[in-house]
Amino acid sequence: MARIVMKFGGTSMAGLERIRAAADRVKREVDAGNEVAVVVSAMAGETDRLVRFCQEAAPLHDPQEYDVVVSSGEQVTAGLLAIVLQSKEVNARSWLGWQMPMHTTSAHSSARIRGIDSEKMLAAMADGVVAVVPGFQGLSESGRVTTLGRGGSDTSAVAVAAALKADRCDIYTDVDGVYTTDPRIVPRARKLDRITFEEMLELASVGAKVLQTRSVELAMKQGVQLRVLSSFRDVPGTDIVNEDEIVEDQLITGIAYNRAEAEVTLTKVPDTPGCVAAIFEPLAEHEVNVDMIIQNIADQQGRTDVTFTVNRTEIPRVMEMLKGAQDKIGYETLSYNDKVCKLSVVGVGMRSHTGVASTMFKALGERGINIESITTSEIKISVLIAEEYTELAVRVLHSAYGLDAAEEETA
Amino acid sequence: MARIVMKFGGTSMAGLERIRAAADRVKREVDAGNEVAVVVSAMAGETDRLVRFCQEAAPLHDPQEYDVVVSSGEQVTAGLLAIVLQSKEVNARSWLGWQMPMHTTSAHSSARIRGIDSEKMLAAMADGVVAVVPGFQGLSESGRVTTLGRGGSDTSAVAVAAALKADRCDIYTDVDGVYTTDPRIVPRARKLDRITFEEMLELASVGAKVLQTRSVELAMKQGVQLRVLSSFRDVPGTDIVNEDEIVEDQLITGIAYNRAEAEVTLTKVPDTPGCVAAIFEPLAEHEVNVDMIIQNIADQQGRTDVTFTVNRTEIPRVMEMLKGAQDKIGYETLSYNDKVCKLSVVGVGMRSHTGVASTMFKALGERGINIESITTSEIKISVLIAEEYTELAVRVLHSAYGLDAAEEETA
Repeated sequence: MARIVMKFGGTSMAGLERIRAAADRVKREVDAGNEVAVVVSAMAGETDRLVRFCQEAAPLHDPQEYDVVVSSGEQVTAGLLAIVLQSKEVNARSWLGWQMPMHTTSAHSSARIRGIDSEKMLAAMADGVVAVVPGFQGLSESGRVTTLGRGGSDTSAVAVAAALKADRCDIYTDVDGVYTTDPRIVPRARKLDRITFEEMLELASVGAKVLQTRSVELAMKQGVQLRVLSSFRDVPGTDIVNEDEIVEDQLITGIAYNRAEAEVTLTKVPDTPGCVAAIFEPLAEHEVNVDMIIQNIADQQGRTDVTFTVNRTEIPRVMEMLKGAQDKIGYETLSYNDKVCKLSVVGVGMRSHTGVASTMFKALGERGINIESITTSEIKISVLIAEEYTELAVRVLHSAYGLDAAEEETA
Repeated sequence: MARIVMKFGGTSMAGLERIRAAADRVKREVDAGNEVAVVVSAMAGETDRLVRFCQEAAPLHDPQEYDVVVSSGEQVTAGLLAIVLQSKEVNARSWLGWQMPMHTTSAHSSARIRGIDSEKMLAAMADGVVAVVPGFQGLSESGRVTTLGRGGSDTSAVAVAAALKADRCDIYTDVDGVYTTDPRIVPRARKLDRITFEEMLELASVGAKVLQTRSVELAMKQGVQLRVLSSFRDVPGTDIVNEDEIVEDQLITGIAYNRAEAEVTLTKVPDTPGCVAAIFEPLAEHEVNVDMIIQNIADQQGRTDVTFTVNRTEIPRVMEMLKGAQDKIGYETLSYNDKVCKLSVVGVGMRSHTGVASTMFKALGERGINIESITTSEIKISVLIAEEYTELAVRVLHSAYGLDAAEEETA
């Protein structure tokens, strides 16, 4: 007997037929004698619909009320899954974020989990009740509804698994596992049997979209056994493991791309610590996540251009903040470009190999793809390119690093 | 300065444009110096969508989980209205059912309100914050989400008004007020300036659909000043008042019809108290609401026919229960007819006037409309007729009781 957390994403909850299929998977684990908690996302498209409502209501909206609105999608699927499980003779009940409660910080729309009161849920599970938990939502210290940010249900699942001391956290999704890159762009992408937490973090944060970054961080920190597998097909998934469990000697694990970012450029910023800090302080205060930052060396007047990337949805807020701070920062012009794509090659093998970057630059250069900026980490190299080259660049790099599957594997 | 509860129905919340219009009405009251709480329904059609999900999940579903699902619609509109109010510089926040909390019984899907903890809301309102409350939802003693039954947001509004000791409870809806009958059937129906609680109860319970019956009962009991008015037009509405506040001498206030009922007939039931009781006991146990009951005098064998009406949706359950009880009741045949309409004339003036019933029978008889059964109360006469005559019968009675507006009023 094991204690298992199963997480179903939006496509696995998209309509009653899919919810029934998910319930069958849950029932299979229950029939095998396992204690099960299920964490669910909203129906595919529902959170988008709710977010649009909020944006239409007011472009700059109170994140406290945003959370009230957008958390409702998971409440619906949690109730429905409980109903469907009961109809299949599986004892089940929903536990909403405020009911457990799932305690979070008060950073509305991107709250962090502080802890889960799991006693009642554990007691019910010991009595054979499947606990159905809406992902994404929590309760702030002041008793308000919070949400964890888009994709937060993965994090909810890992947090529930950690709180319940679960033996395993299975993330059911619309892909069979983690691939070397997006199979929609590269048909010869390969499914990975195993990937390290660190690689998964880099792939997720640059847009591999399989798992939310924070969920991987949390699983790594809490020692949660994580597995990504398909809701729709009975095939082995991908295990997320520690680096010492990786046996094969692979240089590059995957190629990721992210079209959700936009670059913001300020020209002729006085190159003093205070002025550059004045750019990022207000962003940090408003919890705007800045990704790449590129600062050129100063010109002879001691002025420099600063470029950074943020999520495209943050552009209106960021532009407003920076416009308001022009006097303080002292820049000359402010502009943004949201027609960019961030491309990344990821692999723990990079630590012990050289030439990874030059392969990348050469492969892109040969196709006439201009690199606008570059950032690197120990196991990742990311470049910003014009968005229109995304698919071409991903295919070129996938081949350049020898990741293409043999023809027969792609049948 | 007054303390006002404003309630907006589903059509007043159907989309952001309508929510903005509602917010403008709220702002007007705030700008006039009033303390305001707003109770909202889900967007028109949303609760139906959620109910369908539950039915599709399982025809017989756990009402506890049903409540989790269907209560989400009001959560969305509450958050959105708060956002829109804030965008109009009106300080506002939502208070969900479990946050106030709105304490209810544990009768899931048809819970009754036990009380509201209003201290925090009142404190916020005194600070100029508009309290936005999702209607329909509450919290059971065991800490689970409850709902009050369809149309329950009216009751939420009245309960909030009572708890806040509000000076007025304004129900904004898609009609201008309470009419003498359905204006879609009788274009010359007149809007009433005032109607008594008792008349409103009879009109609502027979299908006038403007206000949920329980909300009117609660307002009457708690002394809440109730007003029905249009969300869309700036015209005076209808005040619901005590009988002593009615000055004009009107015989009949309105004509209502209800096509939601079906009649069930059992023939040759032994005319003993036990046998007739055996019909209605199981219905009461299963909380099936029986409306009209007609029992003819017994024949020479001491057997009688019994006819009663229930909501059409209850017919499958009722037929099953009665089939199972044939031996106990001892009836000969069991049948039902769901092609009926209940027609009612309502008016406190009936108490002091005679001839009301004969006017009705004569008017219907002249058009060849057969009356299948009759029930009366102090201020109401209801008859069951074939459904196909509904519109004709309503028009005929509206004229017969002199309720038609003069031509110029209907412009």
